[in-house]
Amino acid sequence: MDSSRQLHLGAFMRPVSIHTGAWRYPGAYPDANFNFRHLRDFALRLEAAKFDAFFMADHLAVLNMPPDALKRSHTVTSFEPFTLLSALAGATEKIGLVATASTTFDEPFHIARRFASLDHLSGGRAGWNIVTTANPDAALNFGYESQMDHDARYERAREFYDVVTGLWDSFADDAFLWDVEQGIVFDPRRMHVLNHKGESFSVRGPLNIARPVQGWPVIVQAGASEAGRRLAAQTAEVIFGAEASLTGGKAFYADIHQRMAALGRDPRSLKILPAAFVVVGDTVADAQAKRAHLDSLVHYDSGIGSLNGMLDYDVSGYDPDGPLPDIPATNTSKSQQQRILDLARAEHLTIRQLAQKAGSYAGLAFVGTPQTIADEMEQWLTEEGSDGFNVMFPYLPGGLEDMVEQVVPELQRRGIFRRDYTGTTLRDHLGLARPENAFFQQK
Amino acid sequence: MDSSRQLHLGAFMRPVSIHTGAWRYPGAYPDANFNFRHLRDFALRLEAAKFDAFFMADHLAVLNMPPDALKRSHTVTSFEPFTLLSALAGATEKIGLVATASTTFDEPFHIARRFASLDHLSGGRAGWNIVTTANPDAALNFGYESQMDHDARYERAREFYDVVTGLWDSFADDAFLWDVEQGIVFDPRRMHVLNHKGESFSVRGPLNIARPVQGWPVIVQAGASEAGRRLAAQTAEVIFGAEASLTGGKAFYADIHQRMAALGRDPRSLKILPAAFVVVGDTVADAQAKRAHLDSLVHYDSGIGSLNGMLDYDVSGYDPDGPLPDIPATNTSKSQQQRILDLARAEHLTIRQLAQKAGSYAGLAFVGTPQTIADEMEQWLTEEGSDGFNVMFPYLPGGLEDMVEQVVPELQRRGIFRRDYTGTTLRDHLGLARPENAFFQQK
Repeated sequence: MDSSRQLHLGAFMRPVSIHTGAWRYPGAYPDANFNFRHLRDFALRLEAAKFDAFFMADHLAVLNMPPDALKRSHTVTSFEPFTLLSALAGATEKIGLVATASTTFDEPFHIARRFASLDHLSGGRAGWNIVTTANPDAALNFGYESQMDHDARYERAREFYDVVTGLWDSFADDAFLWDVEQGIVFDPRRMHVLNHKGESFSVRGPLNIARPVQGWPVIVQAGASEAGRRLAAQTAEVIFGAEASLTGGKAFYADIHQRMAALGRDPRSLKILPAAFVVVGDTVADAQAKRAHLDSLVHYDSGIGSLNGMLDYDVSGYDPDGPLPDIPATNTSKSQQQRILDLARAEHLTIRQLAQKAGSYAGLAFVGTPQTIADEMEQWLTEEGSDGFNVMFPYLPGGLEDMVEQVVPELQRRGIFRRDYTGTTLRDHLGLARPENAFFQQK
Repeated sequence: MDSSRQLHLGAFMRPVSIHTGAWRYPGAYPDANFNFRHLRDFALRLEAAKFDAFFMADHLAVLNMPPDALKRSHTVTSFEPFTLLSALAGATEKIGLVATASTTFDEPFHIARRFASLDHLSGGRAGWNIVTTANPDAALNFGYESQMDHDARYERAREFYDVVTGLWDSFADDAFLWDVEQGIVFDPRRMHVLNHKGESFSVRGPLNIARPVQGWPVIVQAGASEAGRRLAAQTAEVIFGAEASLTGGKAFYADIHQRMAALGRDPRSLKILPAAFVVVGDTVADAQAKRAHLDSLVHYDSGIGSLNGMLDYDVSGYDPDGPLPDIPATNTSKSQQQRILDLARAEHLTIRQLAQKAGSYAGLAFVGTPQTIADEMEQWLTEEGSDGFNVMFPYLPGGLEDMVEQVVPELQRRGIFRRDYTGTTLRDHLGLARPENAFFQQK
C-alpha cells in the first residue's frame, strides 16, 4: 500500500451529535444543533484543526416517532443544509461544506444550481451527499401516499446524478470573457444545452450559472445496500461508510475497490470515511465512564423511538425486556436496519438494551485516550479499513474540543493528518482530481 | 393622510443592475453580478445607508434570447437566491434579505423550510418574493413541455402560499422548552400537523424547524395582472410595483387599497414599493448625460433580445425602423408586456427605439440631482403613489454609491427616511406586524 496515505476527517454536524442524550450532558449547549452562533464557532474550530469537511445529514420530515419520543429529540428543529452551509461559507475560508440533498424529492435543475452557487460562493468547497431519502414520512410532505421503493429510488438517483453533472458542464471553464470593449460576456459556442430526456427527467438546460470552481462539487454517498454500493462504485468520490468494526470496514473497502477496478476507476478517486463516534478521556476508563454517563441520559421513550426509526417497525408494544420480534423487510435504509439486527443477534440484546444503544449510537465508536484513539484510527488507515473518518461528537462543545485539541495533535504528531491545508478547495483537501467537462476540452 | 409616513427603500440586487449596458460603463465592475466579494460589499453599504432590504429577483433558466443577445447579458451567470442571501446573512446584521422563489417549479415544504431557516439564521430578516415564473423556458428545465397558463399558475400560487404559511405555523412560538432536567425539548401539544390536501398539493407536515423569528417571513409580490392584484390584496405585505408614472402609481395604489378595504385588511399591513431606476448627477443635465452614455452601451443585439423577452414574441424579423407588429396575447408576465405596448403606443417608437429602451430600462426612472430625485420621491410618498421604492442602480459600484452617499442623506435631512434602524427584523423596518400563529394562541 501507499505509505504516504493520510487520514481525511469530516465532521458529522447535522445533527451536531447523533446521540440523543447529547443535549443533556453536563456543560453541553442544549440548543447546539439550532444555534447559528454556536455552529459558526464549531465550523471555525474544525477549520483551525484542518478538518477536510463539515458534513450535514438531512431529513425532509420530522422524525417518524411517536410524540413521547419526538419531544425528546434535540434535532426536531434544525437548519436546512443549503442555507446553513452558505451562511458558514461566508464565515470560513478553507473547510469543505458537504450538504445532503435528496434525489427523490427535489429537482435536478435546483440541486445542480444550488451546489454550483455554493461552490462559487465558497471558492470551491462544496460537496453533495446524494441520498434517496429513506424516511417514509418525507413522501407525505411531497404529495405522495407512500415512499417509492428502494430500487426505484436508486434508479432515479442514478439518472438524477447524470442530469446534475451534465448541467454543471453547461459552460466550458473558459466560456466567460467579460469583454467590455466588444460587449461580449461569454462565448456561446462554449455553452452546452443538455437536452436530457430520460425515464424520470426531462431537463433542457443550460444551467444559469458558470461551471463550479471545482468543476463538479465532490460527490458523496452513504448507501451500503447492493444498489447503493453499485451507485457508489460508479459515481462516488467519498463514501460515508457505516461499518461498525475493522473487519467489516476492510471487507467493505475491498468490495468497493473491486467494483471500482471492474469499472476501470482509479482507486485514488474515491475516499471511504466511515462514521466514528469519538469519546476522549484522560484514561480509557475515564472515557468509558463519560460514555456511560452520556448513555444514561437517553430516556427509554427516546431510545425506543430511535430504535423504531432504524428498524422502520414499531416494537414499542413488545416486552422491553424480551428479544426483538421478527422484523419484516421494509423500504427503509437497509444498512441501518441490518446493523441493528446484527447487533441484536450478536449480543443477544433485549429491546430495552437495543433502545438504549439506538438512542446512544450503535455504530463504530472510539472510546479512549488520544493515544488509543489515534492507534485505532491509524490501524484502520494502514489496514485499509478506511481513508479516514466522519467524526461524530458525543456532545458539544466539549466532545468537539476534545477531538480538535487532543486527538488531532496526536494524529499530526504521527504524520497521518495534515498540519495545514495545502490547497483551497474540498477536492484539494481530499486529493481528488478536478473532473473534465464532458462536453468541452480545455483549450 | 398620515404625515409621519416615511419612505421604505429596497435595493434591487439581482441583477445588480437591470440595465444591459451596466457592466460596460466606465469604472463599473463588469462581473459585479457574480462576484461574492463585491456583493457582500454592496450589502454592507446598503446596510450602512439603512436600506430596508436587499432584493433578489430570480430566473429558473438562462434568459430566452438568441445566442447573439444572450452572449451580451451580464446576468447569464448568477448566484441562486437562498445560497447568496444566506451567505450575506452571515456578513450583515440588520438589512432585510428578500429572495424570489417560484410557486410553479418548487415544493411548498422546501420553500417553507428554506425561508424559515434563512429567517432563523439572519435573526428575522427574510422575505419571500412570490413569483409564478413567466419565462416559458423554465418549464423545460422541470420536465414540462410548456408553461402552465397564467391563471392556473396563480391558482396554484394561492394554494402554495396557504401551505407554506401553514407549515411556518407548525410550532407555537413557545413550543420549545429545552428542559434538560426532564429531557424534554418541546411540548408536542404545541406542534400542529397541517394535513393539507388540496387541488395542487398534499402536504402533511409538520415543518422540521421552529416557527420563524418573524412568525412568517415578509410576503412580497410583483404581479400587476388582475390575478396578481387579487392575490396581492389578499396576501402581500410588500408589492414590488411596476408603474412607470406617478399617475399610474396613484391609480395602482388606490386600486390595491380599495381591494384591501373590501377584504377588511388594515392598509398599513401592505407597503407598495415600485421599481425606480435612479441616476444621480451634479446637475440634471449631467445625470441625463450619464444615462444617455449608459444607454449607448446597449448593443442592438442585446436590446432586441430584452424586447423579445418582455413581449414574449420574436420581433427580430421585422424592420427595426418600423413599428411593432400586432403582438398576440401570451402566457407571459402581463405587466411587463403591457408596459412595452403602452410605451410603443404613447411615444410612437420603432422597434429599434423600443429595443434600446428595453435593454436600458423602460420603467420609472429618477434622473437628476439628489435634490430633484428627493423631490420626486417625496411627491410619490405624499401623494400616495407609493410607500417607497425598490431602487435599481444604473451600474455598480458608482450608481449605488451615488444613491447611498448623496440621495439617502437628502431624504434623511427631509425627515422622510430613517437615520438608523429602530428594530432588528425586516418586519420592524417595514412597520409590519408579526402574524399570529393560525393554530396556537400565545399563552
